[in-house]
Amino acid sequence: MVDASKYVSERARKFRASEIRELLKLAEGKNIISLAGGLPDPRVFDKERLAEIARRVVLEEGDAALQYSPTLGVTAFREALKGFVKYHGIRVHDFDDIIVTTGSQEALYIIGRALVNPGDIVVVEEPTYLAALNVFKQYEARLVGIPIDGEGMRTDILEEKLKEMAGRGEKVKLLYTVPTAQNPSGVTMSNERRKHLIELASKYDFLVVEDDPYSFFLFEDVKFDFLKTLDDEGRVLYTSTMSKILAPGLRIGWVLADKSIVNVLELTKQAIDLHTPTFSQYIVKHAIEEGVVADTASRARELYRRKRDVMIGALEEYMSDIASWVKPIGGMFVMATLNNDKIDTKKYLTRAIEKGVAYVPGKSFFVSEDKGHNTMRLNFSYPPEDKIREGIRILSEVFRE
Amino acid sequence: MVDASKYVSERARKFRASEIRELLKLAEGKNIISLAGGLPDPRVFDKERLAEIARRVVLEEGDAALQYSPTLGVTAFREALKGFVKYHGIRVHDFDDIIVTTGSQEALYIIGRALVNPGDIVVVEEPTYLAALNVFKQYEARLVGIPIDGEGMRTDILEEKLKEMAGRGEKVKLLYTVPTAQNPSGVTMSNERRKHLIELASKYDFLVVEDDPYSFFLFEDVKFDFLKTLDDEGRVLYTSTMSKILAPGLRIGWVLADKSIVNVLELTKQAIDLHTPTFSQYIVKHAIEEGVVADTASRARELYRRKRDVMIGALEEYMSDIASWVKPIGGMFVMATLNNDKIDTKKYLTRAIEKGVAYVPGKSFFVSEDKGHNTMRLNFSYPPEDKIREGIRILSEVFRE
Repeated sequence: MVDASKYVSERARKFRASEIRELLKLAEGKNIISLAGGLPDPRVFDKERLAEIARRVVLEEGDAALQYSPTLGVTAFREALKGFVKYHGIRVHDFDDIIVTTGSQEALYIIGRALVNPGDIVVVEEPTYLAALNVFKQYEARLVGIPIDGEGMRTDILEEKLKEMAGRGEKVKLLYTVPTAQNPSGVTMSNERRKHLIELASKYDFLVVEDDPYSFFLFEDVKFDFLKTLDDEGRVLYTSTMSKILAPGLRIGWVLADKSIVNVLELTKQAIDLHTPTFSQYIVKHAIEEGVVADTASRARELYRRKRDVMIGALEEYMSDIASWVKPIGGMFVMATLNNDKIDTKKYLTRAIEKGVAYVPGKSFFVSEDKGHNTMRLNFSYPPEDKIREGIRILSEVFRE
Repeated sequence: MVDASKYVSERARKFRASEIRELLKLAEGKNIISLAGGLPDPRVFDKERLAEIARRVVLEEGDAALQYSPTLGVTAFREALKGFVKYHGIRVHDFDDIIVTTGSQEALYIIGRALVNPGDIVVVEEPTYLAALNVFKQYEARLVGIPIDGEGMRTDILEEKLKEMAGRGEKVKLLYTVPTAQNPSGVTMSNERRKHLIELASKYDFLVVEDDPYSFFLFEDVKFDFLKTLDDEGRVLYTSTMSKILAPGLRIGWVLADKSIVNVLELTKQAIDLHTPTFSQYIVKHAIEEGVVADTASRARELYRRKRDVMIGALEEYMSDIASWVKPIGGMFVMATLNNDKIDTKKYLTRAIEKGVAYVPGKSFFVSEDKGHNTMRLNFSYPPEDKIREGIRILSEVFRE
């Protein structure tokens, strides 16, 4: 018999199954309240109208919708997407172009592959989105974490670090941020800091990846400018997804960026999957045009706002004396930090699962070795409201033991 | 303004837009007979039944079909796929597993990424499938081309080369082959050579990638064993696709291989696109179970057999004195070799397009610098029958000038 391990590439030897994922497998199939996931509540899906759109697309446009299509994406769909982002206040420059990706995961992957050399400095928020972190690690970036507070990334600390690095002759290649309703922290960057960040990008000459899965269904009427909108120089790569405002199972994401960058992303994507499913692109095009996306986003907004309120209420009731958190204005997560920074949430996970609740220990969202062990990410989009309450109550017991 | 080229990674600097693709853009939008493409004829798509399946999947299974799903693929769909390949005589070992990919392009990409180190020796047929060649080049394989004749890869020459390389202490990592109705040559490997190939894989200890997009709609009743079936040691990674027997726009491919290899492919895919669209997987599951795949394959068989006969007929009528070819028993292509080996088909492409017909010059399917310049790939699956005839007639004029 073949010993597969002999044939595996050096790079793939470093790909690790997530330890957390393995721990969470313990919870599968059991009657566990999972606050660990990141799934939309299927009640937001508009099954009636999507079924009708899918049927119509195959019958009326099947010759094209079932066929191969360009790597950049279906031309008419790319136009619809441009209209969609413009409608939401995201600036599309004359020099911009858009590429459709197989979920925003692929957007992050092709950005990493197309731009990051081993040793390149990539700045991220601390904590930050795990899947982005993993891509940058696979492409051997040198990661620099910048702490966040209730107003998002501490751009004052960023500026200090940039000065310091410049003093050593080091240059940042790109900065990755989820400025709005961040995963995992739930924090939204203030407008002042957004402007500061764009100034710094210009001054220190780096690119910015604005990852924006949540802006289209915020719970409060907050005003802010997209980084893409604040940028005049083509430094911002804006990426988003239909996963939360239509359906993740279609795997439709996109990157809006300077044409010359999109051109490299296109060549990168071509060797990976040739193109994103044509059928998904046609469905989403109609879903945008016929208001299904807007309605789904609006249902997500109402449902997740209610669920957030339940979670925040339960946290206030059961854990206000042992933990702190930022009340998110959007997204699907709350990150709780235990006051006792001797606690390592990873060590409590098995016990929590035994008592019937799962969460994601926060450590893996951090770059620095010594940060985040007393944090955990709690999802409110998927579990039913009574389970959210019950889950927090149990957690409070676990961490008081 | 940002100068994007400054930020591009070293690896991406090497990704080139295909020269041929650029030449063929000349033909776009014009009234040109294209024998250059590789598209299925949309008349094989079963729009009626796919529309109904798509509608039903969303209405009845939408909570799951529109949701995130595992990186390996939807469990029930993977079972359906296993049943499908077994039904067609492909052996599934106890130690095998299956991973669903976003088209077979992604299958090739993750194989390259997971297995190939820079400098690793990868053996290919000469000519071979261009997109596979590109993946192996991106991962900096050392490519070794083995010539083919009417019975496929010359395994006697392969054996010589293996001996030679072994003598120099060099070891082959993997061999890539399209054994049945090969793209671009149309050739099918004889069973004797298949057995020889598997013996050599075992003796010289390398993996074999059996890329098999065409077996499910062969034009003649030929008997052969799949390499996967001949292999007892878990050396063969079998990959195929629904693109030609259902619809390419769904982007469903898969790899069937030893579990330990599939495990590495899974970790590799996870960072790339998290998973293949759930919706596409549900649709294909039903299309298999309800016979839509079998019927589509059967329509493809009939239609493409007729079109192949038209193309071979036209070649015999117009070009038998200036070119040779192998009559394919399947697939979508004929490769013609001009008798005059001073002719470079690439140089004639612009002239051919002026006269109203496009083809793919064969050079880029070859590894060796000095081979294939007098060959061209001709597609018969997409163009209408009268256009195929007319296209070959024009080509005959072009190459007689």
